Amino acid sequence: MPYVNIKITDEDATSEQKAKLIEGVTRLLQDVLGKNPATMIVIIDEVPTDNWGIAGEQVTSRRRRGM
Amino acid sequence: MPYVNIKITDEDATSEQKAKLIEGVTRLLQDVLGKNPATMIVIIDEVPTDNWGIAGEQVTSRRRRGM
Amino acid sequence: MPYVNIKITDEDATSEQKAKLIEGVTRLLQDVLGKNPATMIVIIDEVPTDNWGIAGEQVTSRRRRGM
Amino acid sequence: MPYVNIKITDEDATSEQKAKLIEGVTRLLQDVLGKNPATMIVIIDEVPTDNWGIAGEQVTSRRRRGM
Amino acid sequence: MPYVNIKITDEDATSEQKAKLIEGVTRLLQDVLGKNPATMIVIIDEVPTDNWGIAGEQVTSRRRRGM
Amino acid sequence: MPYVNIKITDEDATSEQKAKLIEGVTRLLQDVLGKNPATMIVIIDEVPTDNWGIAGEQVTSRRRRGM
Repeated sequence: MPYVNIKITDEDATSEQKAKLIEGVTRLLQDVLGKNPATMIVIIDEVPTDNWGIAGEQVTSRRRRGM
Repeated sequence: MPYVNIKITDEDATSEQKAKLIEGVTRLLQDVLGKNPATMIVIIDEVPTDNWGIAGEQVTSRRRRGM
Repeated sequence: MPYVNIKITDEDATSEQKAKLIEGVTRLLQDVLGKNPATMIVIIDEVPTDNWGIAGEQVTSRRRRGM
Repeated sequence: MPYVNIKITDEDATSEQKAKLIEGVTRLLQDVLGKNPATMIVIIDEVPTDNWGIAGEQVTSRRRRGM
Repeated sequence: MPYVNIKITDEDATSEQKAKLIEGVTRLLQDVLGKNPATMIVIIDEVPTDNWGIAGEQVTSRRRRGM
Repeated sequence: MPYVNIKITDEDATSEQKAKLIEGVTRLLQDVLGKNPATMIVIIDEVPTDNWGIAGEQVTSRRRRGM
């Protein structure tokens, strides 16, 4: 029954990578908590680097600095 | 005053359907809780089917299987 | 399949009111979007009035002023 | 360490405005709570006006009425 | 850099189980996306069974029916 | 109209600090985006340190190590 929301920056995650995240998180919750996966929902949000800040700085600007 | 977030898969919901969801949820909260709707906010997120997983599987893949 | 999150202030909503919100939102999404309710999830968060601000003011303080 | 999510309507916020929101929120949390900003995350979501409701009405429709 | 929010019903998850979820999700994101875990945040919300609905019904009521 | 959600660890933030966060964020959004604060909502979530992970480790455990 758990619900999981994963937010990542929008930088070319492939459909295969998303499928792996969905599978992997669902299996983890099943293994650790023993939850039935039938109604388990995983939602991935891809956020533009301009809209994501770390330590007060846009990721866009961090990327320019090689971080 | 309530805040409501509705997440649906991004599969052609029309503007009229969204208007009905916003109206309907607002009225429901008013009816059940007696809340003043003036500052009630409803936000609808449309999520690509690749980014939504149920039971460990992408909705894209479920759709292909006719689910 | 939709996921709905309802946030209300923590001011004595009863279990029956929560049941009505869950039922009502689920039916609304089914009516408007034709979604199968089997995997539809509704989560209600009750937020202390000290932790909820409107127009820059805590709800606790608004309540004291009779709002 | 705090995490902040800001949701605004998708109406032409510039990259500079987003940078100011990220900087400003990070500084505010540091000033008020004394938190180390190194792992502080701010995420801005821009929501289409059709998908945002206030008082039961889409923002698209409010904008048409000059609100 | 990813941010993950896991919502589960509030039914006696132990501190060890939470530690495993946090470790496991962080490792998964690192493996699948190659992300640096240093600023990766995982937040677990435990939601009362009265406040969680599936298929229009409170989990409290589903539990009573043995589901 | 913006909506802001601030998540902090549950470590004795006072009501006055929360009031300052609510005021400060509301003013910031007004200054940067020119938004009307009347329908601006800020919600603060306080998360137990067992339920918050950074870099794959519970904050509870980081605190024990003096971080």
